[in-house]
Amino acid sequence: MKATVYNFGAGPAKLPIPVIRKIQEDFLDFKNMGSSVIEISHRSKEFDDLLCETDELFKEAVSLPDNYRVLYVHGGAQMQFSAIPINLIGRKPARKAFYYESGNFARIAAKEAQKFGNIVIAGNSSDTNYDRIPEFKPADIDHEASYVYITSNNTIFGTRWHEFPDTGDTPLVVDATSEILSRKMDYSKLGLLFAGAQKNLGPSGIAMVIIREDLLEYAPADTPKLLHYKLYDEKHSLANTNNTFAIYVINLVLKWLKDEGGVERIQEINEKKAAFLYDYLDGTDFYKGHAHPDHRSIMNVTFNLPSQELLDLFLKQATEVGLTALKGHRSVGGARASIYNAMPMEGVEALVSFMKEFEQKNG
Amino acid sequence: MKATVYNFGAGPAKLPIPVIRKIQEDFLDFKNMGSSVIEISHRSKEFDDLLCETDELFKEAVSLPDNYRVLYVHGGAQMQFSAIPINLIGRKPARKAFYYESGNFARIAAKEAQKFGNIVIAGNSSDTNYDRIPEFKPADIDHEASYVYITSNNTIFGTRWHEFPDTGDTPLVVDATSEILSRKMDYSKLGLLFAGAQKNLGPSGIAMVIIREDLLEYAPADTPKLLHYKLYDEKHSLANTNNTFAIYVINLVLKWLKDEGGVERIQEINEKKAAFLYDYLDGTDFYKGHAHPDHRSIMNVTFNLPSQELLDLFLKQATEVGLTALKGHRSVGGARASIYNAMPMEGVEALVSFMKEFEQKNG
Repeated sequence: MKATVYNFGAGPAKLPIPVIRKIQEDFLDFKNMGSSVIEISHRSKEFDDLLCETDELFKEAVSLPDNYRVLYVHGGAQMQFSAIPINLIGRKPARKAFYYESGNFARIAAKEAQKFGNIVIAGNSSDTNYDRIPEFKPADIDHEASYVYITSNNTIFGTRWHEFPDTGDTPLVVDATSEILSRKMDYSKLGLLFAGAQKNLGPSGIAMVIIREDLLEYAPADTPKLLHYKLYDEKHSLANTNNTFAIYVINLVLKWLKDEGGVERIQEINEKKAAFLYDYLDGTDFYKGHAHPDHRSIMNVTFNLPSQELLDLFLKQATEVGLTALKGHRSVGGARASIYNAMPMEGVEALVSFMKEFEQKNG
Repeated sequence: MKATVYNFGAGPAKLPIPVIRKIQEDFLDFKNMGSSVIEISHRSKEFDDLLCETDELFKEAVSLPDNYRVLYVHGGAQMQFSAIPINLIGRKPARKAFYYESGNFARIAAKEAQKFGNIVIAGNSSDTNYDRIPEFKPADIDHEASYVYITSNNTIFGTRWHEFPDTGDTPLVVDATSEILSRKMDYSKLGLLFAGAQKNLGPSGIAMVIIREDLLEYAPADTPKLLHYKLYDEKHSLANTNNTFAIYVINLVLKWLKDEGGVERIQEINEKKAAFLYDYLDGTDFYKGHAHPDHRSIMNVTFNLPSQELLDLFLKQATEVGLTALKGHRSVGGARASIYNAMPMEGVEALVSFMKEFEQKNG
């Protein structure tokens, strides 16, 4: 094992070290049951206790209003690209929804939704390779819309909606996969928020859906049962055997977050981490940021080097010193540092030191 | 931790001890990456190697013919209750399929399938509380059928199809969740076989689907993308981030199975384990088996005690001596010993010893 590894992967991503250690420590014997957590029934009292505790930890972390439900759903975020239109598009007879295409995942979500309704791309930043968030104009949203959809943080391009659009009476649906629990959000303004777990929550293969309870009523009778949010709500996410390991890890992550001081405190740390990296990027001409400065994410920082050769060398040497998984997504190229909740300030400092040194040698 | 625990839970179930130890051992540093397996990219070379190796191990274990594909799908077995009719019912214009209702899961699967086509219950053993497998009569299946569906082993009731029905040109679809890899099966006779992982394969939250390649072609254009088998096949089950932890554990389980001598050898052991338990049950009037002797499962052994009081005492005392999770499903009552591949003969011997002792004291 390398001395210290800082894993900057976009996801499945680094989890807090105390969480990883706790999983290992508990693995042969969960809650004195003589079995690992992956070998116990999802119907056992021990698992039910864990699930209820996880609900409460999440609700407390985000100050969730009482009229919202917490669901743990199969398939990660992309399964929700189908489930959201299936569950919500029937809210209005026009079967219409407005999507803001701020990146790859928003584009894929809109394309998938077209199978189920009339999807309007209300804003689109593809012409600048998604380096910014499309403009939101309230007048563009008509009252026939069942919902408005945004990707709040764009993992691949390193942009985010700093403020969520005010969509009035039309429910706002937010894919917060790569920034859930990273900053304060007013859930009372949202219709539905969802996130694949594999960035700020836990392992892959599950998503959390937070839904306003009145939106549980619009799925048609032929909805595939495990895409039906109302069933998840009625069965406490156990209509069938859920991904119990993932829920266990989410529970540990939420406890860690609470110990760290909660969302408010982690937001301060996240803002410091991002500022440290962006300040350095802004002061050099060697590295070039991809995201427009007004739209920058504090979770994913995208930048490039002067040439492909230098990029390759950068990625190789970074890996050698334990700064791993910095390669950017193929659709934007360059490098990307994902600095989710679990990345400590020390990791960002180590990265900036390395970047400076690399610039000095190769600039 | 209790000295020795034998976990007889129906699922998520006991896994082989060497697998559980290996997960723990590797957890802080997977393949010298300085990260746990749940923190690495599903697009990394390391994960791709793991996935390819898992395919090969599975194909070798079951002698899979070349015209079958191995898919790792989201949502466990029950998601397939929707995906199967969505993908296959359009094979014939009548949109018809025949289901054999041999237990709860078959019943739920048939009910779900009715959303998508014309479902005929061709056989049903509900009148005897599913204590046997319904009779299969080839003449009942007409040529308009898109497929014939069975649950090969009925976890809750402890019955199984010893031989699979010969459905001729109509593809046979098999839910093998609670017996995959437990006995030799001729995959060349099957259209599709699927299994939730949480019994003989690994942790919950994923299923494996083995599908004959010609059956990939019948899903309609509006299929939710992560229910579409063809997409899983084209993207090597990585159309989105899959449950990477589960695939890793499945890999370890398949390696363990190979070390044990493969499916043929584990079948011998499984048959011995089951015979040991059934022989004892057949020689006593104190415990009563639920399954008809001609239809008994070798994975789930169901029995009851003379009274509710004795059952409660039995379950309590069993747990105290480390024989855990023996409570039967509410729809059949009594006790159930799930003796999947990972349960060693010693566990079954310990259970029978305890049962004898309990009978002597309370009989």
